[in-house]
Amino acid sequence: MAGTEDKKKSSAKQSGGKKKEVKKETGLGLSNRKADNFGEWYSEVVVNGEMIEYYDISGCYILRPWAMSIWEVMQEFFDAEIKKMKVKNCYFPLFVSPGVLQKEKDHVEGFAPEVAWVTKSGETDLEIPIAIRPTSETVMYPYYSKWIRGHRDLPLKLNQWCNVVRWEFSNPTPFIRSREFLWQEGHTAFATKEEADAEVLEILELYRRIYEEYLAIPIIKGKKSELEKFAGGLYTTSVEAFIPNTGRGIQGATSHCLGQNFAKMFEINFENEKGEKAMAWQNSWAYSTRTIGVMVMVHGDDKGLVLPPKVASVQVIVIPVPYKDADTQGIFDACSATVNSLLEAGIRADSDVRDNYSPGWKYSHWEMKGVPLRIEIGPKDLANKQVRAVRRDNSAKQDIPSADLVEKVKDLLHNIQQNLFNEAKQKRDACVQVIHTWDEFVEALNQRKMILAPWCDEEEVEVDVKARTKGEMGAAKTLCSPFDQPELPEGTKCFASGKPARKWTYWGRSY
Amino acid sequence: MAGTEDKKKSSAKQSGGKKKEVKKETGLGLSNRKADNFGEWYSEVVVNGEMIEYYDISGCYILRPWAMSIWEVMQEFFDAEIKKMKVKNCYFPLFVSPGVLQKEKDHVEGFAPEVAWVTKSGETDLEIPIAIRPTSETVMYPYYSKWIRGHRDLPLKLNQWCNVVRWEFSNPTPFIRSREFLWQEGHTAFATKEEADAEVLEILELYRRIYEEYLAIPIIKGKKSELEKFAGGLYTTSVEAFIPNTGRGIQGATSHCLGQNFAKMFEINFENEKGEKAMAWQNSWAYSTRTIGVMVMVHGDDKGLVLPPKVASVQVIVIPVPYKDADTQGIFDACSATVNSLLEAGIRADSDVRDNYSPGWKYSHWEMKGVPLRIEIGPKDLANKQVRAVRRDNSAKQDIPSADLVEKVKDLLHNIQQNLFNEAKQKRDACVQVIHTWDEFVEALNQRKMILAPWCDEEEVEVDVKARTKGEMGAAKTLCSPFDQPELPEGTKCFASGKPARKWTYWGRSY
Repeated sequence: MAGTEDKKKSSAKQSGGKKKEVKKETGLGLSNRKADNFGEWYSEVVVNGEMIEYYDISGCYILRPWAMSIWEVMQEFFDAEIKKMKVKNCYFPLFVSPGVLQKEKDHVEGFAPEVAWVTKSGETDLEIPIAIRPTSETVMYPYYSKWIRGHRDLPLKLNQWCNVVRWEFSNPTPFIRSREFLWQEGHTAFATKEEADAEVLEILELYRRIYEEYLAIPIIKGKKSELEKFAGGLYTTSVEAFIPNTGRGIQGATSHCLGQNFAKMFEINFENEKGEKAMAWQNSWAYSTRTIGVMVMVHGDDKGLVLPPKVASVQVIVIPVPYKDADTQGIFDACSATVNSLLEAGIRADSDVRDNYSPGWKYSHWEMKGVPLRIEIGPKDLANKQVRAVRRDNSAKQDIPSADLVEKVKDLLHNIQQNLFNEAKQKRDACVQVIHTWDEFVEALNQRKMILAPWCDEEEVEVDVKARTKGEMGAAKTLCSPFDQPELPEGTKCFASGKPARKWTYWGRSY
Repeated sequence: MAGTEDKKKSSAKQSGGKKKEVKKETGLGLSNRKADNFGEWYSEVVVNGEMIEYYDISGCYILRPWAMSIWEVMQEFFDAEIKKMKVKNCYFPLFVSPGVLQKEKDHVEGFAPEVAWVTKSGETDLEIPIAIRPTSETVMYPYYSKWIRGHRDLPLKLNQWCNVVRWEFSNPTPFIRSREFLWQEGHTAFATKEEADAEVLEILELYRRIYEEYLAIPIIKGKKSELEKFAGGLYTTSVEAFIPNTGRGIQGATSHCLGQNFAKMFEINFENEKGEKAMAWQNSWAYSTRTIGVMVMVHGDDKGLVLPPKVASVQVIVIPVPYKDADTQGIFDACSATVNSLLEAGIRADSDVRDNYSPGWKYSHWEMKGVPLRIEIGPKDLANKQVRAVRRDNSAKQDIPSADLVEKVKDLLHNIQQNLFNEAKQKRDACVQVIHTWDEFVEALNQRKMILAPWCDEEEVEVDVKARTKGEMGAAKTLCSPFDQPELPEGTKCFASGKPARKWTYWGRSY
């Protein structure tokens, strides 16, 4: 690309002998390409985009401000929405005693291998080891049992923003699979299954909005298979995203109906309106910092991160482009004025007026960080009372009369947000393959597709498919059965078992 | 008190046979008095006020929504203020490897006995034990070393909102001393000591505002002694509160200048403007959920919590007071209308329209929870187009014409906030005792005073005072040397050593 070449030249020319050092310090330029070495590209882009720093304990990562600000935008949205639903925030301890952790058998089996145990304080051995929460069902529910006595205590709707620890050994990946991560976990209890069912979907819709409206990532809403559902729960719904480059599905967030299983174990009973003893219906739901990783994977390109405007802490970066004889002060003043106008209009704008970096270097730097819109102001722009706007998503350039600045920038940001979603949806849709037979399934899997197949919905068949597709790339499994079901004509057979198909289900390799 | 008696009668009459059960479920009424059994009173009030639930692991507590909402109000204030100062939020891991933890000798000595160690995941022993952060200096600073290269990388100002763990064995107390707690920790690095010094005080002023403007608690700003300063730092400033009932000082929050000590250990160097190698100056500062405990201790009374309006999640509770032949629907409608008017004016109001509790029971319930203002609406109020307002802080009653509702309630809330601070200050000030001799010191200590004494500022003298005052109640120590120093006439002697006094310092027992 000519643009990139220009930048390199400009950078080399202006920073002269310091170029090499500058390059080392800020990690300008990626040495891996997204299409060629996706894994290396991802590691490089999260570090060079200053979202992540690798940490000296494997599987733990530092979330730098550039990532944290994205988390905060999503948090602000979600927290306000659940407060409208009368969910209240609380904070339960990080630690769980072993007795409580092991109370729900299926649940503990699902998490036990990944639980981190504290056994010492200072030089002293603890009397009994204490677990660090991998999730908080067993932490919270003994107290739900205490707090819920009568029907007037229901619904009980709590949420916490916290860290959890799952000491996994497979493929630690920043944001996507880390030993400690940040999330919210909502835990609610209702008098009736109907209320619980309704909330599961209400929350799932918020998760869809986080992905589609904030992160510009298309997702599929659906129900998990029995094999893939939350350990100990009744059913799990999820939003599923897809990474075209690796051909892997990724569970975006989950909203579980736990049914009455935990209520039984933890004795969460209440006296209903008729004065009879009844058992509570429970949900739990969570989304984590994984969201940020999915965003990087879906939108990032060979120049670095690409941030959707709605979550970018800097939506517009203004860069002065002084030229030898030009009115340098005038250019810098125009930059400040531009930033101020945008800030006043509620647009998150900043300028980069450092004098030790060339404009070209700055272009690359802010492209690496994924800022949605760059505004350049040079002598010609000053003379013409305009600014030049360059979009991060498609590199399109446009001169904007200074008089129309705010309006045009708002339009552009809106447009970028929409375009990122549309592009991502187009790519995702191109990966979806509808199949009917095992041979088609295997071929589509080899082509890294997100496979929509008629399925008999039997657990042993899913186990069998996993076994038959086991390999270096990982086995195929169900992603979800979409709520939006295509027609399933009478007599359609399961692609894997040949038995009558009961539903369309997405299959694929996954994270 | 007649008022209390009335309520009890009313409650007994209207809830009839259910009274006992109701009392058990919500813990109405305190069995301990603040003046008689302070410790038991405190435990009871945080539980019955629904701030805390005791947890099955000693020293860990559940922060219920009523406490969490207070934390969120303070967080919103502080987070916005530090963002104005260009501090950015980030998130570093919960875990620290032993090598890094032990890098700064004084620092690790200060924390080592309280560090919790993870040694196992699932059934597998870890190769090396991993510590849980008691604070994050050693977690963060290796990366500051990496990120800070030139003077343009400074100042670096990061903050995180997180949990930390200090496995202490002495006197766990909800909010005040718990094995896990929530806090913010700011960690900043500067090119010059002047900038670091200035920030220490800027942050300390925010801590003062949290205590004085939000929690209505008077504090003293000052500097910690060498013995009491942060392990490994250069100097520590703090805001110190005082609990008159126990005669103990309590460190409210700390803002440390770390000097260059950590920078030396972690090699946080940079090239200054002259191209020379220089070492960064660092600060760290934190406040925690302890703030909430101090608030409970200072303002709470024998009826329960007393919340300052600025941090109360419910500032006004509206209670219908129906009477047999009266227009019940009209009363309920007036309650909704009142809540809506207040909400529209930005006042956090709610109503308690439950039909299974009597008005008297509700009065006690919301008094226990500390809601600043209660509004009662009965037939007479309806007829007179007024509401009755009852203050939590001083039980004062006032009829407010409905037409003046918003304005009067705003005034009242403002007044309550101010009054709580004034009352607390008066009580605190009454506990301050200026002394000059050892005998006076011992007498004041026995009287549970906050002692202001001329001191030679020598570490061994403080050690000696601690040794000489050791006893069941705990030894006396320095709280802080106030920035606001009274005159120290030439020739004034240290109360303890008889050497020339160098400063006035607050002494006392403390939490």
